[in-house]
Amino acid sequence: MAETIATVGEFGLIHRIETVLREEGVLAEGVSVGLGDDAASFVPHPGYELLVTCDALVEGRHYLIDRISAQDLGRRAMAVNVSDIGAMGGRPLYALVSLGLKAETMVSHVIDMYRGFILELGPYEAAIIGGNITKTDHAAFIDITLIGEARPDKILRRSTARPGDTILVTGFPGQAAAGVRLLLSEHGAGIADADPLVAAYNRPVPRAKEGFEIAQRGCATAMIDTSDGFLGDLGHICEESGVGAELFQDKLPISDDLRRGAALLGVAPYDLFLGDSDDYELIVTCAPEKAADVMEAVAAIGETRAVQVGRIVEAARGMRLISPDGGDRQITPAGWDHFRIK
Amino acid sequence: MAETIATVGEFGLIHRIETVLREEGVLAEGVSVGLGDDAASFVPHPGYELLVTCDALVEGRHYLIDRISAQDLGRRAMAVNVSDIGAMGGRPLYALVSLGLKAETMVSHVIDMYRGFILELGPYEAAIIGGNITKTDHAAFIDITLIGEARPDKILRRSTARPGDTILVTGFPGQAAAGVRLLLSEHGAGIADADPLVAAYNRPVPRAKEGFEIAQRGCATAMIDTSDGFLGDLGHICEESGVGAELFQDKLPISDDLRRGAALLGVAPYDLFLGDSDDYELIVTCAPEKAADVMEAVAAIGETRAVQVGRIVEAARGMRLISPDGGDRQITPAGWDHFRIK
Repeated sequence: MAETIATVGEFGLIHRIETVLREEGVLAEGVSVGLGDDAASFVPHPGYELLVTCDALVEGRHYLIDRISAQDLGRRAMAVNVSDIGAMGGRPLYALVSLGLKAETMVSHVIDMYRGFILELGPYEAAIIGGNITKTDHAAFIDITLIGEARPDKILRRSTARPGDTILVTGFPGQAAAGVRLLLSEHGAGIADADPLVAAYNRPVPRAKEGFEIAQRGCATAMIDTSDGFLGDLGHICEESGVGAELFQDKLPISDDLRRGAALLGVAPYDLFLGDSDDYELIVTCAPEKAADVMEAVAAIGETRAVQVGRIVEAARGMRLISPDGGDRQITPAGWDHFRIK
Repeated sequence: MAETIATVGEFGLIHRIETVLREEGVLAEGVSVGLGDDAASFVPHPGYELLVTCDALVEGRHYLIDRISAQDLGRRAMAVNVSDIGAMGGRPLYALVSLGLKAETMVSHVIDMYRGFILELGPYEAAIIGGNITKTDHAAFIDITLIGEARPDKILRRSTARPGDTILVTGFPGQAAAGVRLLLSEHGAGIADADPLVAAYNRPVPRAKEGFEIAQRGCATAMIDTSDGFLGDLGHICEESGVGAELFQDKLPISDDLRRGAALLGVAPYDLFLGDSDDYELIVTCAPEKAADVMEAVAAIGETRAVQVGRIVEAARGMRLISPDGGDRQITPAGWDHFRIK
């Protein structure tokens, strides 16, 4: 019989979750009190700082429930948090998962979501050590708190870029934006889950291993993930560091897939690249002579590449896009402002 | 002009929140990266374990938006987490606040909620160091992760009660249940926010200071907060510790207010005491000769009292209620199972 949360109850569901975590998850090293008490407890490693972040996905807003598998949804909810820890140069350790679920949700859906969490934490041997489940009558939500660690001298912030620094980016930002827009467009019904653009949206690959490696090598001055879109997050670096930025249009890594998607959508690929997009790539700044080290650090992981796309300038220059013919125009970071009336 | 989140935008709202935290919150000691980066970072104290818990309130389910002030709502959302850390014997340190908000929400409502968070963290000099804001179109939610600390040998679990132990409880469980039922009843319109039963629901006082003091004195064997109702949480102790429990009906602390509320509602005060109720009192077990120490530890804080209500027995006895005439009946921990079909 297909079981729903309503039929097994909250505590029944928690028992199923505990079973899948015990059988398929990582046994969390350093944890003295795990699931099933008022709070979880762990022993921090001497000499490390702890990093902590939280990010939520809300049904209908951050994912399309009928266009993503439960396991991919779990992976994605965890990936956005893994990305934040990696963007600080840290290593993920422990996660707390807080779910708002509807009573008619299938138990198997929740368990598959947990399999996604586990898959995404696997490369870091990180474990789920706590959480909360509550009933919601409307949109479900997945809210994850992820705790990581880093040596104090290896933590990379967004506030420490300097004029003259080179700007690099990993992967191909904008693909997730193209993916979700295609899913929502007239092309949505015909597009496969395996399409690289849809995959970029449904199964983003956080660059936490790359972020950790860059931090270990000490070659960067600032780092951020592109969760607010490329320009939005470059804007965060500029604002927090008190600097400006110049981007070279012909250096921006526009993938063939992105060009194809942009053509289908009737928009410029640069708009998809620069604007809101849930790609979770890294923007890295470094002294020009360290750019090769950053690229090498990213290549060493073997999953993607980093390329140079511009340079940090004085704040007074603002953010500018330099076209191949030498044209030079101001660009503004729209960022992903969920609330603003457009 | 009355501003909504839609008019100031996500980043506008975040700036307002940062301002109120800077001006009215605690400057978090040990924090090296605070609000406004991918993750927050802090230096753990050597020799301490870290405790971490998360708990969410969902509009319409855990609070009645038109019957609670924004500041009380913030206090309550933080209090449920403070209670969890205290029930482990820990001290709250750092909070992350994840909000799901509707675009038409007033900015002042959010800021007042933050004032509530700050008020509730104040006694512990604990600080908000991060969070997330996302848009939701339906029920708002407040999901808080709270990090605390405790010496490893002072952590109190729910799994360590032993047959022969005395069972104690702080305060007057059941009052919050009476409060919310009155608000939802025909008496709801006429009942004041200051009514002690409504206050118990809207402004629960977590017993974290008491929990910390009990843990410091080393006088207890197990501890839990009553977030799943008195019987539900005593049931958790029994299940996790592999024991049973006998409660003496005439020892249960039924307040005059609870009797009054029960009469208005036409229910037995014992049902309100034993069943689901959001009071956040503590259930403590200890060796019989330590019961006076537990009561003294609670009294030392000066906010409430603890009384002896029963004793831990062998698991085979189950959970039993002993009436003044010596009658003895099995009771089952219903707990608060949000999902189960009744």
